[in-house]
Amino acid sequence: MKTKGYAVLAAKQDLVPFDFSRRELRPDDVALDISFAGICHSDIHQAREEWGPAIFPMVPGHEIAGVVTEIGGAVTKFKVGDRIGVGVFVDSCRKCSSCLAGLQQYCVEGMTGTYNGYERDGKTVAQGGYSDKFVVNQDYAVKIPGNLDMSGVAPLLCAGITLYSPLRHWNAGPGKKVGIIGLGGLGHMGTKFAAALGAHTTVFSHSPEKEADAKAMGADDFISTKDPKTLAFLPADFDLILNTVSADINIEDYLKLLKLDGTLVVIGLPGKPYSVNVPTLLGARRSLSGSMIGGMPQLQEMLDFCGEHNILSDVEVIDPSYINEAYDRTVKSDVKYRFVIDASKF
Amino acid sequence: MKTKGYAVLAAKQDLVPFDFSRRELRPDDVALDISFAGICHSDIHQAREEWGPAIFPMVPGHEIAGVVTEIGGAVTKFKVGDRIGVGVFVDSCRKCSSCLAGLQQYCVEGMTGTYNGYERDGKTVAQGGYSDKFVVNQDYAVKIPGNLDMSGVAPLLCAGITLYSPLRHWNAGPGKKVGIIGLGGLGHMGTKFAAALGAHTTVFSHSPEKEADAKAMGADDFISTKDPKTLAFLPADFDLILNTVSADINIEDYLKLLKLDGTLVVIGLPGKPYSVNVPTLLGARRSLSGSMIGGMPQLQEMLDFCGEHNILSDVEVIDPSYINEAYDRTVKSDVKYRFVIDASKF
Repeated sequence: MKTKGYAVLAAKQDLVPFDFSRRELRPDDVALDISFAGICHSDIHQAREEWGPAIFPMVPGHEIAGVVTEIGGAVTKFKVGDRIGVGVFVDSCRKCSSCLAGLQQYCVEGMTGTYNGYERDGKTVAQGGYSDKFVVNQDYAVKIPGNLDMSGVAPLLCAGITLYSPLRHWNAGPGKKVGIIGLGGLGHMGTKFAAALGAHTTVFSHSPEKEADAKAMGADDFISTKDPKTLAFLPADFDLILNTVSADINIEDYLKLLKLDGTLVVIGLPGKPYSVNVPTLLGARRSLSGSMIGGMPQLQEMLDFCGEHNILSDVEVIDPSYINEAYDRTVKSDVKYRFVIDASKF
Repeated sequence: MKTKGYAVLAAKQDLVPFDFSRRELRPDDVALDISFAGICHSDIHQAREEWGPAIFPMVPGHEIAGVVTEIGGAVTKFKVGDRIGVGVFVDSCRKCSSCLAGLQQYCVEGMTGTYNGYERDGKTVAQGGYSDKFVVNQDYAVKIPGNLDMSGVAPLLCAGITLYSPLRHWNAGPGKKVGIIGLGGLGHMGTKFAAALGAHTTVFSHSPEKEADAKAMGADDFISTKDPKTLAFLPADFDLILNTVSADINIEDYLKLLKLDGTLVVIGLPGKPYSVNVPTLLGARRSLSGSMIGGMPQLQEMLDFCGEHNILSDVEVIDPSYINEAYDRTVKSDVKYRFVIDASKF
């Protein structure tokens, strides 16, 4: 299937227009016209080969919202015209305990990434969502509720689920106090979800000017961490803190804010290991945990939740020609709060 | 109440015979003749002032097994002749959420340590179990099942509960795979408990000669870590790993052995912070957690469990005059597996 998109042809190069082919539909596949594709910070890391050897040419993009244009003969889940989403992976082994539990992101054979990797045949390079068309196995796509604007939906497929999943896994809800470190592409989703789930929600941000935004997203409290000493004066009363920040922070400052049996979940990937002071964990049976996106059932659950609560990502819609500038601005955190490419312009 | 014991008169000095007085019984107190007092590695750290400023003279000891000799007028829980145990703390605020939940070890005002601290009046120095007599509030003592030998019971009050509590909290039992790092005073208790709880139990030890002991205690597997590279070849299939080792180990080697949603619980206090590689946590929603002894209800539950399963600490019973030598041997891990002082010899 002929496809137009944008690709990085070699590491460190800018993205350029790129014509390529996707597979013709297999019986279990659906084809979609992409409406919007989100720009995730991890796209930039991979396009710039900052996370180890990458595969070029690379069409990045794993936050995909589109409309079904064609279905394979065995497809039962979707019909032409359905609005569907595709996230960070497009396949997995389907038989390990993780896959059987609907936690395909933790597939023991490794999930099949939406781009910058090979499909399960071990030779076909997967290409992502910065393009006009997409083909995906029906089991790795989800339905988008009718009331949601497609541009604000795209980032839900990665940024959204990355926050929704740990909030649900660690039972954020009424009576719980939740902290979100960082108000960027990830953090703004965490703030909206934590508040919508009924938790008392606190945003920690080193940008005091974001307070009004945080409150508008549902935050009950906003703590400016411009002076990190602020943290030392806070009580240890958080049930759950999610760290969305990739920058090196002193994780100890936040571990100490957890109450008995509280958990700090890491979502962003810092550049170097955390230094963890063991007595801080022992003193209140605290946990430091990690969480990575979410599985297919939860991805659908999240979109349904967004439909019910009218939750979208706050986005800046751009033309494909603006991708390279958007990359630079994303690196500088100069976006409120996620760039989304208008895929009708490819 | 006149009491004979052994004390450290000043930091870094040897322990010497020491006569002192304990309080006369209050209405809620019981007095006991101590039968045996265990030597815990933390006694040594405090006696040698390795954990910050300490209070001298110090009578260490927080693994106390004895027989009630007198009860206060309001005591309902025990009667004269009862065999009872006292552990790491002898009081707490009794009104915070932790205390009300029976988790007095996490009292928000801080538990009142059995020694090397002040009682809740803020001025009376608490003195520990290396002595012939003890006085304790009835709420901070537990009953010892009749079938258990008192010498092997004493270490249960600290070493035992330190392992039993996290095994119960993180649901060790049939179908779960549990690892115990280190086979010393703590680890040998963890091995016995994990096995008795029905978990598949693996001991990691840098002393290959301890394999037979580990198996006799119920371990299903024994992994010699003399060559730490061994760990790299093991599958990631542990639900729970308890690290009882204070020595600096590469925690990453063990975090990687956890399966999806597995937890590594730290119990020993290492000399320096852990370096934690965040992707290891993210890759399988793993957790690094801490746990500290256990609360009063669980202390009783553990002793009852020991009664049912005939679980004791493996001990070497010593005279008080041997305490200083026992300290040196404990530091060298030259004990199988816990020294216990015969308190009838004070």
